[in-house]
Parts: sequence; structure tokens; C-alpha cells
Amino acid sequence: MSLALILLAAGKGTRMESDLPKVLHRLAQAPLLWHALRAGQALEPARSVVVAGHGAAEVEASATDFAPEAQVVIQEEQLGTAHAVAQAKPALDGFEGDALVLYGDTPFITEATLEAMREARAKHDVVVLGFEAADPGRYGRLVTQGDALERIVEFKDASEAQRAITLCNSGVVAADAATLMALVDAVGNDNAAGEYYLTDIVEIARSRGLSAGVVRCDEAETLGINSRAELRAAEAAFQTRKRAELLDEGVLMTAPETVFFAWDTYIGRDAEIEPNVVFGPGVTVETGARIRAFSHLEGCHVSRGAIVGPYARLRPGAELAEEVHVGNFVEVKNAYLAEGVKANHLTYIGDADIGERTNIGAGTITCNYDGFFKHRTTIGKNAFIGSDTMLVAPVTVGDGAMTGSGSVVTEDVPAGALALGRTKQVTKPGFATRLRDMLKAKKAAQQTAKGE
Amino acid sequence: MSLALILLAAGKGTRMESDLPKVLHRLAQAPLLWHALRAGQALEPARSVVVAGHGAAEVEASATDFAPEAQVVIQEEQLGTAHAVAQAKPALDGFEGDALVLYGDTPFITEATLEAMREARAKHDVVVLGFEAADPGRYGRLVTQGDALERIVEFKDASEAQRAITLCNSGVVAADAATLMALVDAVGNDNAAGEYYLTDIVEIARSRGLSAGVVRCDEAETLGINSRAELRAAEAAFQTRKRAELLDEGVLMTAPETVFFAWDTYIGRDAEIEPNVVFGPGVTVETGARIRAFSHLEGCHVSRGAIVGPYARLRPGAELAEEVHVGNFVEVKNAYLAEGVKANHLTYIGDADIGERTNIGAGTITCNYDGFFKHRTTIGKNAFIGSDTMLVAPVTVGDGAMTGSGSVVTEDVPAGALALGRTKQVTKPGFATRLRDMLKAKKAAQQTAKGE
Amino acid sequence: MSLALILLAAGKGTRMESDLPKVLHRLAQAPLLWHALRAGQALEPARSVVVAGHGAAEVEASATDFAPEAQVVIQEEQLGTAHAVAQAKPALDGFEGDALVLYGDTPFITEATLEAMREARAKHDVVVLGFEAADPGRYGRLVTQGDALERIVEFKDASEAQRAITLCNSGVVAADAATLMALVDAVGNDNAAGEYYLTDIVEIARSRGLSAGVVRCDEAETLGINSRAELRAAEAAFQTRKRAELLDEGVLMTAPETVFFAWDTYIGRDAEIEPNVVFGPGVTVETGARIRAFSHLEGCHVSRGAIVGPYARLRPGAELAEEVHVGNFVEVKNAYLAEGVKANHLTYIGDADIGERTNIGAGTITCNYDGFFKHRTTIGKNAFIGSDTMLVAPVTVGDGAMTGSGSVVTEDVPAGALALGRTKQVTKPGFATRLRDMLKAKKAAQQTAKGE
Repeated sequence: MSLALILLAAGKGTRMESDLPKVLHRLAQAPLLWHALRAGQALEPARSVVVAGHGAAEVEASATDFAPEAQVVIQEEQLGTAHAVAQAKPALDGFEGDALVLYGDTPFITEATLEAMREARAKHDVVVLGFEAADPGRYGRLVTQGDALERIVEFKDASEAQRAITLCNSGVVAADAATLMALVDAVGNDNAAGEYYLTDIVEIARSRGLSAGVVRCDEAETLGINSRAELRAAEAAFQTRKRAELLDEGVLMTAPETVFFAWDTYIGRDAEIEPNVVFGPGVTVETGARIRAFSHLEGCHVSRGAIVGPYARLRPGAELAEEVHVGNFVEVKNAYLAEGVKANHLTYIGDADIGERTNIGAGTITCNYDGFFKHRTTIGKNAFIGSDTMLVAPVTVGDGAMTGSGSVVTEDVPAGALALGRTKQVTKPGFATRLRDMLKAKKAAQQTAKGE
Repeated sequence: MSLALILLAAGKGTRMESDLPKVLHRLAQAPLLWHALRAGQALEPARSVVVAGHGAAEVEASATDFAPEAQVVIQEEQLGTAHAVAQAKPALDGFEGDALVLYGDTPFITEATLEAMREARAKHDVVVLGFEAADPGRYGRLVTQGDALERIVEFKDASEAQRAITLCNSGVVAADAATLMALVDAVGNDNAAGEYYLTDIVEIARSRGLSAGVVRCDEAETLGINSRAELRAAEAAFQTRKRAELLDEGVLMTAPETVFFAWDTYIGRDAEIEPNVVFGPGVTVETGARIRAFSHLEGCHVSRGAIVGPYARLRPGAELAEEVHVGNFVEVKNAYLAEGVKANHLTYIGDADIGERTNIGAGTITCNYDGFFKHRTTIGKNAFIGSDTMLVAPVTVGDGAMTGSGSVVTEDVPAGALALGRTKQVTKPGFATRLRDMLKAKKAAQQTAKGE
Repeated sequence: MSLALILLAAGKGTRMESDLPKVLHRLAQAPLLWHALRAGQALEPARSVVVAGHGAAEVEASATDFAPEAQVVIQEEQLGTAHAVAQAKPALDGFEGDALVLYGDTPFITEATLEAMREARAKHDVVVLGFEAADPGRYGRLVTQGDALERIVEFKDASEAQRAITLCNSGVVAADAATLMALVDAVGNDNAAGEYYLTDIVEIARSRGLSAGVVRCDEAETLGINSRAELRAAEAAFQTRKRAELLDEGVLMTAPETVFFAWDTYIGRDAEIEPNVVFGPGVTVETGARIRAFSHLEGCHVSRGAIVGPYARLRPGAELAEEVHVGNFVEVKNAYLAEGVKANHLTYIGDADIGERTNIGAGTITCNYDGFFKHRTTIGKNAFIGSDTMLVAPVTVGDGAMTGSGSVVTEDVPAGALALGRTKQVTKPGFATRLRDMLKAKKAAQQTAKGE
């Protein structure tokens, strides 16, 4: 059955106290929006419709950045969730299949839960996602009879008996798309807030002889973000869960509480992560790699057997092949380091390709920027770059070539050649002693003058 | 009404098990003494008197370092708090107004509380700061009748009924200075310890027909430090509170528990602080600046829109204007970086002024020290400093000038000029191959000799 | 009385879900095996016998790495603890004295507890280590009468009354070696698992008229490691305990929860450790040294008054004398820095000896590796190494010598001499302006071509 996502992302999020639309606040280094979108995308929907409102241009840019095929529709006025869903109608023109309504501010929903909802559609016309609330508070209650959902009662309209129900409404709904649109069209706004509530569709569906059912998920999945405090709590929850997940999967961490992950960090089994490591978005670390303390990784790939850090800074586009070693104040950006490359001290490698088993000496810098253009450095395999070599890009160093320490390499170095750019040492006997005596005398004179 | 602070700081702090006087132990990177002094100074007192005793010279140096106008008097023998207050008498010669007695080992007292005490003086001759104790234990109890304080009863002298009182004595007192001195003069030492207790002044005041009242504060404000364990607990409390405060004020932190602040750290709204950042004393970060992971800041100013780190080390005197970027193993000390300056890799900038939008290449070093003197480097705006440039100070590089990578710049570079100090590259074909073959043969020979 | 250790280390540790033998998993950066072995070695045993099985070759290598005199015997089949102990018989040939049975997966046992067991041997023929269990669960119970141990009952064989006993069996046993071997020989395997249980020796001993007694220790000491989750819990427990111990001993830490220690880290009284410091194995820090934030230390020695960090990377063989300062992206490896040496910015010192009070300029690198051999750099006292000096080892710089910044030093520098390897600066007026105009035009042309 074909699927369409309808992701509601129009809210302002007043309680965030921020100019940024709520769904663009970041959790685990991705906009809230992306989390729900990712869960939905995992079901391979035929269409994805994002309903934007406040900050629509920014929301659209962000949504299509993650999911280029997403259609963004605008809800000009925020008249309620049913009204928001109705805005998706033009974007579903010609679509046949199920629609699944998700929320941009509910980032923890899982693919497995959404899959369960899709499957439950075999039994029910309308499927609502519910959860057993530890403290049901003011959530809407799901009134069920056996397997069937009778209606959703808002807390303020609920009787004492209904308030005793602990099965609550998450707001996530699945139904045949055409049916859903017909149902939301029938929703009225005859309530205190004058809003069109999506929850009303259950009662309307029942009144039309359609069946409704409930899929249950863990309460944690339905957590919505409405304030910065809730966002912080969600961030902490994300980190705690991600650490536990990775430990369960066999990642080694002695101090997991000091390691921070992004939403999409991938770490292979038996990889080791030492204390105090920060992962930005877009990192994959293969099985058996070792990320040492005080390392910072973003948008990079670390292959099996590689050792990164301590104090390694991998920036987007850093690609480390097997057995590569980088660390001790080394930064790598937009560069491929082939198998066995070593760059172990005080080095900047940017916009470069480095061949197998090449050794990069301490203090080496790829001079990749001239103020206007970025240029690329290419180094062959088994090369030996002497300490403090400046590689003024664009430049190529051939296989097995060497550079003398302290050289500024501006011209290509053929394979097997040695490049030097070094002034011969001049040693002046006694000069240091005289210079020191002179400076010492000057300092003494100054101190005398100051009356010290 | 004019105000005089009397800050008691004479105690040895035996339980600290340290040679350092108790009030000089550091909390949030400032001596305990400074915390109470700062709260008091916020009321803009006409005089500040610090009563020192153990380690008086060190205490005086520290007190006047923070508050140059403070007068330090010596309590030769520690004969009790009333005796300590009495030592302030000569320093208050000619002063008319209120006196406020504070304690050097009670760092959490707030300006708002002290202000409330000052205001309460309108109603009472003697004002005592009290707190509702969660566990009153052995604290002195405040015996009140309606609004009036009748007396302070030491725990050991208290009746069962009095011990049931939960309103306890903080020791902080406000009164007319002359009245206070007359009262402390009347205090006797007829007790087990043979000490003159400041608490006795309430009963004496009442007996003289003066009124006494209580101002209440949160118990946390009255926390006194008597051991290293208490100091550690206070440090943890400080950090927890400071993080919560900043989050409330709109500072963004995803892992606040990994960020450590100093007593005077100022962070503007919507500034972002990534995990693992340490603030030393004297840091201000403006609205919207971003402090990235693994950065260490002391005595510096970061303007709006600046990006600091990861791995930035800002030392005292680092002044970063708007939109400045520094990070990736970069250290800045006693230097002004004008708007838009970038220094993004492996750089040391010390004792320098750098003009707008100048780009500092990777590996650049200001050679500011000759073993005896520190010298200054001046760089104009829109300059381009090539990678690995050594700027041998004193030296000036003009607006829009450039330096070639690997250059040692010892002479001034005029605006628009290019400075080079580079040996032309010499490339020796086949040399690297021959050198490698030679070294390989030597290694093999050694291994054979060793029987490997 | 002479002592022999028998350390049982043959188990596979199936629940660790790892190819590595259980006792080789690391706790506080040392194999589990080493922890128990260290506690035992503290009693200065005449012999140490390690009973290996799964991964015996690896276990032997690890055991003899820590204790070269240890004998490793192989238990081919794992037929139970009594069988394991019996394997030690050949290794104890000719030995007279006590035997003490320890476990490779029980790392927290203390020297003091083992000493108490040795002393208890004066009163009993067989001494068993017991502990009061908070939750006795399925532990074996110690059935005692007065001072005497009557028998050890496995949980599954225990009566209700016996299950109510909270004194449990740790498995650690001491007895005369010959007696122990006679007892284990008498143990049968007539039980559900078909295993020879060491616990049976108590009943056998009693039946032979020998006495048995119990020594009690804290439950935490008997913690055994059987899964990765237990290993992580043990790691956390180790860190918590080590931090508390050091704080008690007078080490200053404001954020102890961010400092990670190895099993053998030694920190002297009044040393200060700032937040975010990681200690690898083999570190000693003397009284009054200061380890600043973001530092990483392994296999090194830091003397009194030294300041390390922020961002110092000390690797094995780094030896810092008194008052040495290293930090701000500085790495030191296999090098001796004499009293008062300073290396404070962006420096790599490897395989070097540096004399008293020598100042190492920013960006200095010891070029110690030529691709095949490591060479040593020797610098005298009171020398001044200019910024960005490359010291191409082997090379010697004499006392009081200087090097110019940006120099590549390939030849020895005599005492008092100045070495320079620098090309004179050439300044080309207007060149930068023309170069920038050219690049700007090229960029504009490209953008036009792209239609930007």
C-alpha cells in the first residue's frame, strides 16, 4: 500500500521564546523536524507533505534540505490540527493510499511504531497511536472497547471515569488518505478555542460506520517539545538512550556519560570511544576503530583499525581509510587519507588526497587557501613529508617522494624525488651570549629607571 | 544612608587542613573572601573593613586586589565574633551610618538579601539575617515574637521548646555603626569557650530598649565553608546554580553539566556553549556568540557573532570583536582581533593588534618574546598572513599586505606589499629513493646484527 | 611464612561476548587479571601461579608482562574451581608454606584483606573470605558456629534457615599449600554440573579434624566481572572510589567527576587537577604540581611545582622536573625536561633531553624520525629555542645557545652560539595589492561564467 506522510510543522512555539520556528530548534544536532521526518521516511512514503506556517520559508528550506522530494504546503492561519491536515489536500492530488499524520515537534517516534500503525490499518479504517501515561495529566484519553477505539475525549470534557483512563492520545493518526481528508473536512470548530481538532475525526469516523483502533507505543516516543527546558530534557534523554544503545551493540566506552552523539552517528561493534569525545552530524566509525580522548568529529568516515586522537579534529569530508592514525592536535578537512597514513602531530590537512602509508611530519600544513580560492594537495603513497613542510596548493608530491623539514613546497615533486626549500644553517659562535648580555643589560637599565 | 561593610576574615580554618587561610581557598576560581565582598560592594558602601587574622598579609593582599579601597584591620587574637567586629572601630572613625557584618567564609549571600537587610533597618535598630533550616541541628535559634526578634539562643543553651524553632541565625547583622560598636563593647565572654559572641548583642540591645528584627533568606545563601569537603560541595552547588541561571536567561547549552564557570562569567542571551568548555575568571561572552567544544577561556571578551573553538585557548587580554573566528588549536593572549578576523588553525597570537577581516594562516606565530622583553605585533586590516609565518615582534604589517607561507617577517611590511622570506624549492630527482634504500639497508644490517 | 598465590584465570567469560579472554578485559586501563595479581603481589609471595585456560597464550603473555616471575599453568578442560587449583600442583613442587587462591575476574580485592587472611591462618587450617551481602541472592552461604566455619552451602542446596544467612562466600581461600592440594584431590564431582567445587574443601577439612575460619571484607571487594555491563559498573565504581580517595588524601579537584584515572595513577597531596583530565597508565604527579584542563597523561612523571596544560599531551617517557611548564597544544614523549624548562605553545618534543631553564619557542619541533630510525635531540641549559625551530635529530644545542625563529637546525650548535637558517626577508611593494586584484578578477570571471 502506497503511503503519504503529512508532517505538521506550522506552530510558532511561543514557549520556546525564540525567533526560530519551533521545529527548527536542534536536538542531537538536527532540527526537530528531521527526526520525525526520518522516522517517516524510513517507511519509504510515495509522498511527504510538510505543513508549514510560522517561519515557513525557513521550515521549507530545512525540510527539503533533509528530504528534497518533500512538498511544503502553507497553513496561513493556525486554526487547529484538522485544519493543518486539510492543507495537505492539494499536495495529495492523484495520490491513492494511506496517509500518516506526524508532528514536527515529536522527535522520538520510531520507525517500528509507524510500521505497526501501517499494519494495523488492515484491521481498522482509522488508526490512532496511544500510550500508557505514567501521569496522564491533561492528555486526551482514548476510550476503547476491546480492540476498538470508541472516541478520543479531551481532558477538559472528560468524566471522572474517563479521567481514570491511562491510555492517552499521541495525535499520530493513520487512515486512507481520501478518507482522512473527508473526515477532516467534517470537523467543526464549535469549541472554546474555536479550533478544528484532528481528534474529532474518530467520533466522526465511527458515526459513519468506520472502525477505529489503537496502536500502543512507549510514552517516551510521544514526547513533544514545547519549551527550551523540554528541549534540554529531550537532548539528555537522547544522549542517555544513544549511549545505552551503542553499549548494547558492543561499542566500548569506559565513560559513556562524557561522549556526545549526533542524531545520525554510526559506530560499529567493538569500536572504542574514550572519554570526552564529541560527535557532530554525519559521522560513521567502523568496527574496531579507536576514537581517543578529546576528539571532535563531524561529517567524516573512520575505517576499521584507524586510531583518531587524542585531540583530533575531523571536519566534514575527512575520509580515513583503514589503519590511518591521526591525533595530537591534528585537523583534517575534506581530505582522503589512504590506508596506513600517519599524521600524528600539529598538522592541518585540508583539501587533500594522501596515498597509502605516507607519513606526514609534525607541523605540516596544506596551504589550501589563497584568500579567494581553495586548492587541492595530492600526495602519493609511501611518501615522507618532513616536519613543518608547507604544501602550497595546488601541488602534487609523487609516490615515495620526500620533503625536507621546514620546506615550502610550491612546485610538484616527482615520484622518488627529494624537495628542499631550506636555507643552510649559519652558526655564529658567541653571538647568543653577547645578545643575552645586551638584553640583560637593557632590562637592568629599564628596571633601574623604573626604580624597581 | 551611608553604609560600612565589616567583613570577618580572621579565622584559620583548621578543618581545611591547609596552610592557606580559609577565606583564600577558591570557589568558582575566586577566593571565598571575594564572593562575600562582591555581594557587599554591590550596595556601594562608603567604607569596607576586612578583619584579618590568620595569614593577615595574604588576606590583605587578596582583599585589596579585589577592592583596592578596602581597609584591612588585624584581629591579633581570635577571641570571638564580637571581638572581631570591635577591631573595625578605628577604621570607622568619623563614619556615620549603618554597618553590615558579613563573613569571608559565607560566599553565597546575595545582594538582594543584603538590600533587604538595609531596608529592614527602617523598622529595627538591629537586623539579623535568619533562615528556615531544613535540619536546624546545632544552629543558633532566633526567638521571635511577631515581627520582633527577642533573642538568639545558642543550641547548647536552648530549651526543648526553643530547639523546636527552625528559624536559625546566619550571623549576618546590620545596625547603626555607632550603636553596633557600643553593643559589641558590652558583650562579655562569660561562657564555656571564653569568647565574645556577636549573637549576644540582640539581648543587650533589647535590654537597652532597642528593637531587633529578622530578615529571612534561603538557607543556601548562608552556607559556610569549613572543610575541603564543604568547599567541594559549594563548588558543585555554584556550578549547578550558575548553569540553571544561564539556561533560564536564554543561553543555549546542550550539555550544561560539562561546562564550568567562574564566579564572574558573563554570557549573553542566545549565546551557545557546546559541551566541554571551561571558563576561567574574567570572561564576557556577548549575545549570539558561539563557544565550541573543548575551549578554555580566561580574562577575555568575545563579541556577538564570534565563533570560538573547538580547541580555542583564549588567555587574559584576548579581545575578539564581532564575527571573529578562532579555533582548532589556536591560542590568543593579550591581543585585539578586530571584526571578522579569522585564525583557524594551529596559531599563537600574543601581544598583537589585528585589523578587520585579516586572515591569519595556519601555523602563524607572533614571536613576542626574546627571552627578556615582550614585543608587540601590529597587523592592518584585510591583510593575508600566509601559513607558518613567523612575525618577529616588534613588527608591523600594513593594510592589505600579504606574507608568503613559511616566511620569517622581521621588518615592517608596508600596506599592499608582499613579504617573502623563503628559499626557492630545490628538487633532487631520485634522491628520496636512494635515501630510503640507504636507510632501509642500514636498518636491515642493524637487525641482522641484533639477530632479529 | 612463605606464600604462594594461585590465581584462577581460565574461564572463557561467555557473557562478555568477546573473543578476548575474560581476565584480559580492561578495568581502569589494566587487564582485570593485573588487579588481583597486584593485590596478591603486595604480600610478596615466593611463587605466583596463574591457572590459564581459554586464551592461555594471551593470558600468559599478560600475566608475565605484569609479573615476570609468575608461572602459568594450563587447565585444559574447565572442570571446576577445585580442578583448577589442582593444576597448580606441579608449579608448587618443593614449595612449603601457605597457598592463597585468588580470581582473575575479581579485581577489587585489597592487600589489607589478603593480609588479614594470612594472619587468620594462625588460628585456622583453612581460611575462607566471606562478606555480608546486602542481597545474598544465589551466593553460597557460610555456615558458622562462633568463630568456626562449619561448611559452605551452595544456594540451591541450602535449607530455608541457611538461605536466611547473609554471610556469603567470596571463593577466596587460604591454607597450607600441601593441605590445600590434599583437600582439592579429595573433592568429587558428584553434582548436577559434574564439576569439582573448591567450596567442598571446607567440609572435607572438617571431616579430617582440621579447623576452618572466616575473614570478612566489604562486599565491594568481592565483586566479580561476568559481562560488559558488570565491567562498566566496575569501571564507574573504580573511578568514584579513586576520586574520593585522592580528595581524602588532599588532592585538589573542583570537578572530580570529569577526571579519569588509571589503576596505578599516583597523585601527591595538594596537587591540583582541573576539569577534564585523562590519565593513562603509569603516571605519577608530585605534590603541588598543577594539571590543567584538557590534559592527557600517560606513562609520565610530573614533579613538584610543574604546570601541565591546558591541552598538554604527555606520552610515555615524558619526565618533567620541578617548575617545568608545558601546555597549549604541546606534546612530549620520551623526553626529559629539566627544572624550569618552558614549552608553552604548539610544540612537539620527542626523544629529547632539555637542560634547566631552557625556553622552547612556539611551534618548535624535534624532527626525531627519518622514516626508519628515531634520533635524539639534546639541548643544554639556559638555551633559547626560537619559534618554529626544526631540530633535525640527532642534534645537540649547547648551554645558553639560541636559534633564530624559523630555523632548520641540522648541525650541532655550540654553547653560547646563535644558529640561524633563515632567508632574508624580501618585501615587494604593491605586490599584494596586484595579486589580490588579479585573484579577485579571476573569481568574478568564474562567478560570471557560472551565472552566479
